[in-house]
Amino acid sequence: MSELSARSGVAIPTIKYYLREGLLHQGEQVAATRAEYDASHLRRLSLIRALVEVGRLPIAAVKKVVAAIEDESLPFHNMLGTAHHALTPPVEPEPTPEWEAAKAEVDALISDLGWQVSPTAPSRDELTQTMMRMRRLGMGDDMRAYAETAERLVREVELDAIPLSDDRDAAVQALVLGTILYGRALESLRRLAQESESARRFTAAREERDS
Amino acid sequence: MSELSARSGVAIPTIKYYLREGLLHQGEQVAATRAEYDASHLRRLSLIRALVEVGRLPIAAVKKVVAAIEDESLPFHNMLGTAHHALTPPVEPEPTPEWEAAKAEVDALISDLGWQVSPTAPSRDELTQTMMRMRRLGMGDDMRAYAETAERLVREVELDAIPLSDDRDAAVQALVLGTILYGRALESLRRLAQESESARRFTAAREERDS
Repeated sequence: MSELSARSGVAIPTIKYYLREGLLHQGEQVAATRAEYDASHLRRLSLIRALVEVGRLPIAAVKKVVAAIEDESLPFHNMLGTAHHALTPPVEPEPTPEWEAAKAEVDALISDLGWQVSPTAPSRDELTQTMMRMRRLGMGDDMRAYAETAERLVREVELDAIPLSDDRDAAVQALVLGTILYGRALESLRRLAQESESARRFTAAREERDS
Repeated sequence: MSELSARSGVAIPTIKYYLREGLLHQGEQVAATRAEYDASHLRRLSLIRALVEVGRLPIAAVKKVVAAIEDESLPFHNMLGTAHHALTPPVEPEPTPEWEAAKAEVDALISDLGWQVSPTAPSRDELTQTMMRMRRLGMGDDMRAYAETAERLVREVELDAIPLSDDRDAAVQALVLGTILYGRALESLRRLAQESESARRFTAAREERDS
């Protein structure tokens, strides 16, 4: 176990905790005080760290993801879906006509785009909440340009990062890290582009007006 | 004040707190126990709520944004920049060669794109941290497609939402709400597109393999 800890960079008490919680499978007991761990243990520890440290998932959610990986009868796409849904904190739908109107818009957008998305995907409610807020604030809420952009990035870059192999741990880890890190990078780039466009647009406009 | 509270939806003790903190300007005192508030007070309360509730800014950051709005000698673009920088939590640069390499890549990307971004913009460090993590994990970190996408959305949609008027409160509020809400919508749409693309790609691939 001390070797597993050294190689994975995960502290021994943490490894013991993951073993107790059933997140990590037991090693092969080769002596009373010695168990052997292999590459599958390293892969699992790497996945758990990605889920906890980068994905900031609570242990209960990590358990669900690990259960989906270990249930070999669950198809690949559904296993990824379990991980994916765990990454999106649930949003409570509101029983108001305003919510229903925004939800209908979200459902129509997804259906117009021909996207295959489960009716219970938590991102549907998340997007409904955001669009309802935009409407309330009088902001434009035509999301088609954003949806097409998202589709292109996902098709051309993000999904290619997921290995279609029998290593289910590696596939889930690639999905989780890709979702989060490309998302963060895109958010930083939007802010940088906004600053630049504001400089271009407002500095020029003001100079013209003031001249 | 009770009328201001009713119209703005902000509780009286909260309004009093904003007055004490100097975030909201005093009303005109028309009698010993009565002050008059006008449209400028309603606009400011609306802005403060957007910064606190949607932007989740701490009061210290809200103070900086309000000071930039009230300093009429500060050009429009720089006032927006103050609000914009306040939205990005600072990331501590690491004194490592790995950090320096990622930072150089970020700076080169921004310069290749011809973007006008302040050398101290906090999103530079934020993006550096994400790209360093991606490199460590062996993920592709070519951000050009993401940068060009961000630029297009910002030019064609997001910056148009900012009114170029003398109402500095309204401009800052539009920037903050646009940055955050379009960002959230894009994040939800990426996850929905991922689910759909995963269904398209992995369901088909598995069926082929298993047939």
